[in-house]
Parts: sequence; structure tokens; C-alpha cells
Amino acid sequence: MKETTLKEIAEALGISITTVSKALKNYSDVSEKTKKAVLALAEELHYTPNSFAVNLRTKESKTIGLIIPEVVHHFFSNVINGIIAEAEKHGYLVIILQSNESLELEIKQVALLINKRVDGIMLSLSNESNDDFHLKEILRKEIPFVQFDKISKLIPSSKVIINDQKAAMEAVQHLIDQGCKKIAHIRGPENPQNAIDRFLGYKKTLEKNDIPFNSNLVYTCIGAGFEEGFNFAKQIIEEHPDVEGIFAVTDMVAIGVIAYLNEIKLKIPEQIKVVGFSNWFISQVISPKLSTIDQPSYEMGVHVFDLLLEEINIRKEGKEFKPRIVELETSLIIRESSMKTN
Amino acid sequence: MKETTLKEIAEALGISITTVSKALKNYSDVSEKTKKAVLALAEELHYTPNSFAVNLRTKESKTIGLIIPEVVHHFFSNVINGIIAEAEKHGYLVIILQSNESLELEIKQVALLINKRVDGIMLSLSNESNDDFHLKEILRKEIPFVQFDKISKLIPSSKVIINDQKAAMEAVQHLIDQGCKKIAHIRGPENPQNAIDRFLGYKKTLEKNDIPFNSNLVYTCIGAGFEEGFNFAKQIIEEHPDVEGIFAVTDMVAIGVIAYLNEIKLKIPEQIKVVGFSNWFISQVISPKLSTIDQPSYEMGVHVFDLLLEEINIRKEGKEFKPRIVELETSLIIRESSMKTN
Repeated sequence: MKETTLKEIAEALGISITTVSKALKNYSDVSEKTKKAVLALAEELHYTPNSFAVNLRTKESKTIGLIIPEVVHHFFSNVINGIIAEAEKHGYLVIILQSNESLELEIKQVALLINKRVDGIMLSLSNESNDDFHLKEILRKEIPFVQFDKISKLIPSSKVIINDQKAAMEAVQHLIDQGCKKIAHIRGPENPQNAIDRFLGYKKTLEKNDIPFNSNLVYTCIGAGFEEGFNFAKQIIEEHPDVEGIFAVTDMVAIGVIAYLNEIKLKIPEQIKVVGFSNWFISQVISPKLSTIDQPSYEMGVHVFDLLLEEINIRKEGKEFKPRIVELETSLIIRESSMKTN
Repeated sequence: MKETTLKEIAEALGISITTVSKALKNYSDVSEKTKKAVLALAEELHYTPNSFAVNLRTKESKTIGLIIPEVVHHFFSNVINGIIAEAEKHGYLVIILQSNESLELEIKQVALLINKRVDGIMLSLSNESNDDFHLKEILRKEIPFVQFDKISKLIPSSKVIINDQKAAMEAVQHLIDQGCKKIAHIRGPENPQNAIDRFLGYKKTLEKNDIPFNSNLVYTCIGAGFEEGFNFAKQIIEEHPDVEGIFAVTDMVAIGVIAYLNEIKLKIPEQIKVVGFSNWFISQVISPKLSTIDQPSYEMGVHVFDLLLEEINIRKEGKEFKPRIVELETSLIIRESSMKTN
């Protein structure tokens, strides 16, 4: 499946990528000799001079669309990198659209991708998304479609997910094992399934350990960012000065929590322990280093593309496609913020 | 210019966005009464039910393309957010393509955007880009085009930039004012103009202060990431144990430097001072907090879109377009890593 690249032709002939590209476009400032050498090698290696020209013959655009809530997010950025690396290997270009957690934008972007006739669509739902008729449109048009991370369970497409509930259970059990009994949870927004599942993991683990669930210890984010973490930490300490542990829905929220606790000089982990979720890069360079759940983000991107390609190829052959669900393993990473101290 | 949104119609009628969208598409599960109300209001507010249908009448796609080296980069992520927010106000959708710092991908992506007939292209060059014939193709086709941050000076398009040299001079002068004489510079890769300009700012400031320039104190990154910062810091301390200050080309490199210095327990800023560049979010939550140059990234995104829209509108009227260059102000942010200590 691997496509020949301009770089390979350039290296084989000892000339620049630019010269190869110019030669293929018949620019006048490239010598006839070089042009001939490039064209001969391009033909030998089955190079496709313009991958969009393929469009006309095969009706494939070799372009796929990715809709993602926000790219500034460390987790999604790594998913994007995984998707692009894998797509490049197979000669696909990735169009990225950022929904900004808005259902309205997401609906428009799905329409745009359908309209631009991409070969497939990959999507992680915005927090605002509480309906899925625009996703049904993708299925109705039989466009290869993979959902990942924030998904609609009811839409029968391929999916790449983690087990958020199980991962949250591991995080909370760890806090209990370190001696915490009174544990607050800063949860994600109302809609997304992964925020619900992480909350359920928290609740179930308390019950499993005979710790009564107290809804006053649960705080709900709107955006799940640094500032919300900072402000909720303040509120938690004011309302529950005897709290022993905080489980935050994402690392960015947990980092806000740590910033506040550092500010009021509460000792982490001696006086209070903190666990995040996602294992962002930043978690290992802050002080104290943050314990968290590692989500395999780059690997998730690779699986997302591979599932999409599988569907593209099966549909191309006119065969029936059965969606597949890939569940990736997470792991608890214990760092300074939740170490045992007594 | 502001377009009516589904949300506005939904709020005005007290129904959900989904219902509005379904009504406009004539779905059977929406009552005739609701459909009538939605259609009447949509007409009154000049709502465009499907913005891609516009295409056929006006030859505008209301879609613009953005090519960016990497989205995981805090700076670029904020530029993206600025562009998207401004584009949304004016009813444009933004297609994002990530070049992964590869010239080959960048060339393909420019071709894709031209092929998909976007209304305009915004681009920040990859580090590998050392030629610009693909950019000339955009100009030749008279497609509205704005370069930003990493630009090709020779391409006469609109541009949004900062003065990298001046900003670097401010950073290095600050280190000298804090008492540093022996200052190392971890510079960016060879090609990009901004890495060259930051290096020149470093060199000129030393000369201006009668500190002889020593090329052995300059270290050149390939990718400019955390690990390079960490490893170069090790090398700097080994080769120049008496170094007093380090000026790093980006915050991520500076954070790698700080991680190494923390590891070997060299005191920052007492024994050595560190200044970064870009003011990433992470810089204010690490310990010690990093002094840096603030680049107005979100604001840059807003200007990039506005310049593009200006060109789109002028060309639409068939008038001659003269490219404009917008230079944004930067500022030095002094935090713990470069405080005066004696």
C-alpha cells in the first residue's frame, strides 16, 4: 500500500524535493535531462504525480476528514499525530476540523466533509452533542466512519475507545489504598459519555469499599480546564477542610487543583492526594509530579485510521461491512501527588 | 457580515438546535407546525440552510484552508483558536492541515487546498521548507493568501508576524541586566527565519554590551522539544560549568533545561538563569516559573483571518489587492527563573 514519495525520488537521484516536484510539473527551470530522470524513476516506482488526479479515475479523493473538539488539548493532539502518521503511510491526506465543543459547528462540519466527498470521516463528539441525526446521515450515505474517545454508543459505526469506568475505578481504588477515605471528585461536563463513565467509576469504587457516596463531594465542570480545577479546589477546601483526596476528570483540572493547594501551602501528598486522568506531558514536569491514568493517545490515532481504512477497502470491494470496536488498555501511573506518606 | 445561526433560530423559537436542523431538512419526525415556524424565521433572518449550496450560485465555498507545522504546539493551537473564532463570526469553515514540519506534505497540502477550491489559504512554513515555488502557485492562481509566524520573506503575500530579533534582544538584555555575562543560546533549526532572527538578536545584544560572541555557546536544535532542551542543558553544564544564563528558542526547550537543572540541583535563578520564548501555558505552572517572551498567539489568529477576509472581499469586487504586513507587539514576562538574586 505504501506510496512512493517525492523524497524517495529526490534521494535516489541526489537532487532536492523541490526539483523533483518542479520536474513532474514540467517547470522550465529544470533541465530536460533531470526531467527525464525524474519521470523515468517516478514511473518505475509507480509514483502518482498528483494524488488528486486519482479522483477522476477511481472516484477516491485520498482525503479523509477528522472532526475533533479542540486541538489545543494534549490528548487530542497526540491522537491527531497518530492518525496523520498512519494516513501518510497509506497516501491519505487528513483534513482536520475543530468543533470547539459546539454541536452547531459539528453539524456544519459533517455536512462540509460529506460535500467535499472525503473517503471517510473520523469524529470525537463535542460536549454539546446530545443528538446524533447528523451522524446517522454519514451512515445513510455509507461513508466509512469511525468514532473515538467521545462517542455516541447508539450509532453503529466502528469505534476506538478506552474503558473510562474501569480506569476511574483504578484511580479511586489507588487513593483508597493510599489511605484516603474522604475523596472529592471534580467531574466532566454533563453530556459526554466518558465524563459520566468516570463519575460512575468513582461512585462504584466508593461503594465497593463501603465508603458512603456523598453527592456534595462531586463538583461538575463546564469546560474542564485549569481555572475550573483551581476554583473547585478552593471550594472543596472551604466546604470540606478534612478532604483527603481529589480525583479530577482530566490532568488539566488536576493541575489547577495542585496550583491552588500549592498556593495555600497544603502539602501534597502528605495532607491531601491528587490523581488526574489522561497523562498529559505537563503532568510529569509540574511539582509535585501528578499521578494519573495513561491513555494511549497516539496509539488510539493509529487504530482510528486503520479501522477507517479497513472500512474504505471493504466497501470498495462492494462487500458488506461490519463495524468493529477496539478497546485500548489504560494504566495507572503513580507519581508524587499520591504517594503513601505514613 | 454576521450569519444567522441554527442556535439563534432555536433560541428564538424555544426549541433545540437539532429540531431546527431537522426542520430545515424536512425530516418526518418534526411536526408541520414547527417546520413552518422554522422556515419562516430562517427566511426572515436570511439564514442559509446549507452554506455549501452557496457554492453553486456565488462560486464561493465559504471554506478556507490552514496549513500549520504541528497542532500539538501550544502557540499554534492558540493561533488556530483565534482563526476559528473569527472565521465563525463571518460564516467561514476552517480546514486544518498539519504539515508535520515536512516540505513534501506541505506541497501536497497546498495542492489539495487549491484543488478543493477553498476561498483562501493561511500558512506557517514547515522547518524543512527551503523553497517556495508551491507558494508562488497560490499567488499565480490569485488565491487569497496570508503567511504568519514562519514565513517566506520573498513571497509578496499578506503576513502577520512578530519582530523575533527585537524580542530576542529584549530577552538577552534582561539576562545581562540581571548580572549574567556568560550566556548560552539553544537556538532553533537552521531554516526557519524566526530561529535565525532569534539567534541574531542574541548575538547583537552580546555585542552591544561588549560581551564577545562565542559560537561554542550556541547549540542548534533539530526539533526544538523538551528532550533537546534537557540534553543540551547537560552538555552546556559539562562544557561550560561557569555559564550564568541560558536563552532558549522556545518555552518547551527551556522547560527541558529547567528539568535537567532541577535534577542536578543547580539553583535557578541563584546559580543560573533561564529565559524561554513564547509564553506557553505550562511556563507558569512549572517550578521555578519560567521567564519568557509573550507572543500574542490568539490575536495573531484573529489578524490572520481578517487579512485573508480583506483580500477575499477586495478580489471579489475585482479590485487590485496590495498585500499588507501586520507586525504584532511582544513583551518580556519576568518570572522566577531569571530573578535578580544578589
